[in-house]
Amino acid sequence: MTDFRGGEVWLVGAGPGDPDLLTRKAERLMTEASVIFYDALVGEGVLALVPPHVRMVPVGKRSGRHSKDQTSIDRLIVEAALAGEKVVRLKGGDPAIFARSNEELEACRAEGISVRICPGITAASAAAADLGMSLTLRGLARRLTFVTAHALAGERVSLDWHALADPQATLAVYMGKAAARDVSAGLIAAGLPRDTPCALVEQASLPTGGEFLTRLDLLPIAARTALGDGPALILIGQAVGAAVLPQRANAYTGTVRASV
Amino acid sequence: MTDFRGGEVWLVGAGPGDPDLLTRKAERLMTEASVIFYDALVGEGVLALVPPHVRMVPVGKRSGRHSKDQTSIDRLIVEAALAGEKVVRLKGGDPAIFARSNEELEACRAEGISVRICPGITAASAAAADLGMSLTLRGLARRLTFVTAHALAGERVSLDWHALADPQATLAVYMGKAAARDVSAGLIAAGLPRDTPCALVEQASLPTGGEFLTRLDLLPIAARTALGDGPALILIGQAVGAAVLPQRANAYTGTVRASV
Ligand SMILES: C[S@@+](CC[C@H](N)C(=O)[O-])C[C@H]1O[C@@H](n2cnc3c(N)ncnc32)[C@H](O)[C@@H]1O
Ligand SMILES: C[S@@+](CC[C@H](N)C(=O)[O-])C[C@H]1O[C@@H](n2cnc3c(N)ncnc32)[C@H](O)[C@@H]1O
Repeated sequence: MTDFRGGEVWLVGAGPGDPDLLTRKAERLMTEASVIFYDALVGEGVLALVPPHVRMVPVGKRSGRHSKDQTSIDRLIVEAALAGEKVVRLKGGDPAIFARSNEELEACRAEGISVRICPGITAASAAAADLGMSLTLRGLARRLTFVTAHALAGERVSLDWHALADPQATLAVYMGKAAARDVSAGLIAAGLPRDTPCALVEQASLPTGGEFLTRLDLLPIAARTALGDGPALILIGQAVGAAVLPQRANAYTGTVRASV
Repeated sequence: MTDFRGGEVWLVGAGPGDPDLLTRKAERLMTEASVIFYDALVGEGVLALVPPHVRMVPVGKRSGRHSKDQTSIDRLIVEAALAGEKVVRLKGGDPAIFARSNEELEACRAEGISVRICPGITAASAAAADLGMSLTLRGLARRLTFVTAHALAGERVSLDWHALADPQATLAVYMGKAAARDVSAGLIAAGLPRDTPCALVEQASLPTGGEFLTRLDLLPIAARTALGDGPALILIGQAVGAAVLPQRANAYTGTVRASV
């Protein structure tokens, strides 16, 4: 029972790409909407579930780059809601994680527009599922941290590599493929062992995706070798040592295997 | 197309409780299973979606306490798979986050049993959705860390409060209600401002749940005042300052409002 009225906005998590990883609620909201503003990150298979009568408006750019003009996205959403539309703002993964949702929430609230969030499966959960691993390990990986290497790249000075370089933590780096060298060098300099297990997961949950298992010092090689330009997540830590490469079709010919 | 064969095991994320937050895939796997081993944390509404012919076996205890005898759960799963059953191991939230999945993965693999993971919405995503907030804020909350206060309470010595007390991070504390005092004191001692916004979210996603918005130094009061014994998540950080209390029925009579 979502009770979606005209003039309301839902920020909806589309999950990592596989339409089967959409929640039942997200699927229903997509069906009840009159207009959907969607990111480039939203899976094709997810978009295919939208009924033909719903107006589809692509916004935003591919992952790893700046969102194109957040302010104009905010304005599009607000104007549609003020016009009485049932607005879905569809985002890859979970709307609460590295998705600029706060801007959209504030823009709606400033206009007195009702805005709610439907959560989604975030990329880290999907990547861990693909690799058949747990992100936390009792006693060994008791902390799980999500960072974005987008912010890292832009604001390296304020990054606390020391706090991140915890051998008892699992680190999930969003938007990190381009910054793999910085991440590897920063963590090693802060004391994380060079042979810490790492995984690079491209297009988690999708048959077109691929995985590399590697180690921290070789992570930059894996990031360069990865051929696709799809979104990729980096996982770092002892928990990754338990990862298993899935038997699915992928575009990779070589795999850098961890020696651990 | 999950292609669930006899003798296989799926670790399935049931999400935070609301059956609408189940993924399409999880719902299908629950229907295709011949036996489901489920946690006390799995929502009633989720269990209600299981068809009557599927054998349901409750395992584990309520959240916040020790899982009851993980080894015997592992053995139950393995034996069912070896007997040719289609086994679903249903867990609250996401199986990759504080869910002892590694033990079950290893137990299956040791017997050559095929075991896969279907991710779920984790409690932090659900709590953020309930509060209408983003867990990350551009420039202000660039890091998101999940910890468990279960491990915290048991192994306080090795906890790096300094690393956690980052004013630019959002902290999600799983199994933290009983340890709210330790968390508050530890973070304040490590330098996190006393008025850092906090939220305590009980039974996220469920109509029976409730939320407190408070501040770090008052967090122990909120944890004591919260009447329910349902699972609760603590969120800490500047991002929580943007939270909005939802208008839903809940069991709380008082709300400690942040003065920020
Ligand atoms: C702008 S962030 C959005 C994150 C999203 N809100 C989430 O919760 O997953 C984009 C980054 O998420 C990660 N990502 C999103 N979907 C992914 C997928 N299917 N596989 C791997 N990484 C993904 C990549 O690191 C990508 O650069
Ligand atoms: C053993 S951990 C399991 C976490 C789960 N795998 C997940 O991803 O959410 C149990 C803890 O998760 C949190 N939790 C699970 N479901 C919750 C809910 N609906 N609302 C609030 N917290 C929840 C509570 O902190 C609880 O003590």
